[in-house]
Amino acid sequence: MSIVTVERKILQKNDEVAQKNRLNFQKLGLHTINILGSPGSGKTTFLEKLILQTNNLFKTAVIEGDLQTDLDAQRISALQIPVVQLVTNGACHLEAQLVQDGFNQLDVSDAKLLIIENVGNLVCPAGFDLGEDQKMVVLSVTEGEEKPLKYPKIFQNASVLIINKIDLLPYVKCDLNTMIVNAKSINPKLIIFAVSSTTGEGFDAVIQWLKEFTLTS
Amino acid sequence: MSIVTVERKILQKNDEVAQKNRLNFQKLGLHTINILGSPGSGKTTFLEKLILQTNNLFKTAVIEGDLQTDLDAQRISALQIPVVQLVTNGACHLEAQLVQDGFNQLDVSDAKLLIIENVGNLVCPAGFDLGEDQKMVVLSVTEGEEKPLKYPKIFQNASVLIINKIDLLPYVKCDLNTMIVNAKSINPKLIIFAVSSTTGEGFDAVIQWLKEFTLTS
Repeated sequence: MSIVTVERKILQKNDEVAQKNRLNFQKLGLHTINILGSPGSGKTTFLEKLILQTNNLFKTAVIEGDLQTDLDAQRISALQIPVVQLVTNGACHLEAQLVQDGFNQLDVSDAKLLIIENVGNLVCPAGFDLGEDQKMVVLSVTEGEEKPLKYPKIFQNASVLIINKIDLLPYVKCDLNTMIVNAKSINPKLIIFAVSSTTGEGFDAVIQWLKEFTLTS
Repeated sequence: MSIVTVERKILQKNDEVAQKNRLNFQKLGLHTINILGSPGSGKTTFLEKLILQTNNLFKTAVIEGDLQTDLDAQRISALQIPVVQLVTNGACHLEAQLVQDGFNQLDVSDAKLLIIENVGNLVCPAGFDLGEDQKMVVLSVTEGEEKPLKYPKIFQNASVLIINKIDLLPYVKCDLNTMIVNAKSINPKLIIFAVSSTTGEGFDAVIQWLKEFTLTS
């Protein structure tokens, strides 16, 4: 029983800090997205493409979360974008306090969009509010069409699903329509985009959505 | 501080049950492998291929772990192999007690090999001993060559690495040699096999290793 209590306390404390983050982001006019997904689903490559296609429209700042290394922050930094790397030292998800600490180091002047890339994990990050406006899951077609059924919580808690790596569809056993039907069966409200971060296919619709999300206050 | 204490108690209790499992498996002459990896790394497809190529050599029994659904157990059951599905109801890893409960439902008569397929997660399952002889990580080339550096613990704790989906190498940005070098830099003792569970490439060496592991007492 004591375990449950401690866990509840951790989540309660996290929610309090997340709420402070949310108010702070709103005060600064920042729209925020928490990107979630398995290791290797292509979150960082998707993010690179998104930044390249929107940096003439608005300024984005990025918080990168990883267990170890600053490899992802190096990639984002190469795009001349303000970025902070959070290293969890083995923890399987980001928490609101770590995001707050990282955010305090980030130059967000003139930025309209804040993107937080979570630790690669299709399970644990789902339960931790960071103060974001939207949770976006990136799922690649190489992971298989049944994943929304097997990992339902993260799809239930998200508002946007990016189905990534559609350029690989001819080479893998994954039916795109079945993947979409499975995702909708878990969360009928999900906004779904199918893209290739390699070829750029499908990005026009994502950029349109992101523009409306970021520039409408 | 109380959080640390509770976590230590959970792990200590888990280790005690894992040790009981280990002694029980040994008494029954079962060699055991705990398969770990991201969602969609291809653990179940790899396992299906392994069973098909060894069922004339020895009998295998399987414990499947998932957050939700018995989709994986259905696939293994179709191969006429004894299988039990563990559903964690959202928990991000298997624990030794759940494995013990599942094992008690499993028909292992004449079986020489027990394979436990863990929840798809490259982080949390690494810390939980289930009583297995070997931890085997399945990592697909679509996940990217840098993953051993970004998720080091699971590669440190494993003895075998299966690099899967090598048939997709022509279509993805992943250098196989760099992935191997990265994995060895984290754990120099790793036994590494590169395979395609779709084409069967590379399976001869895995089967040879598995035969020696399973039939040598």
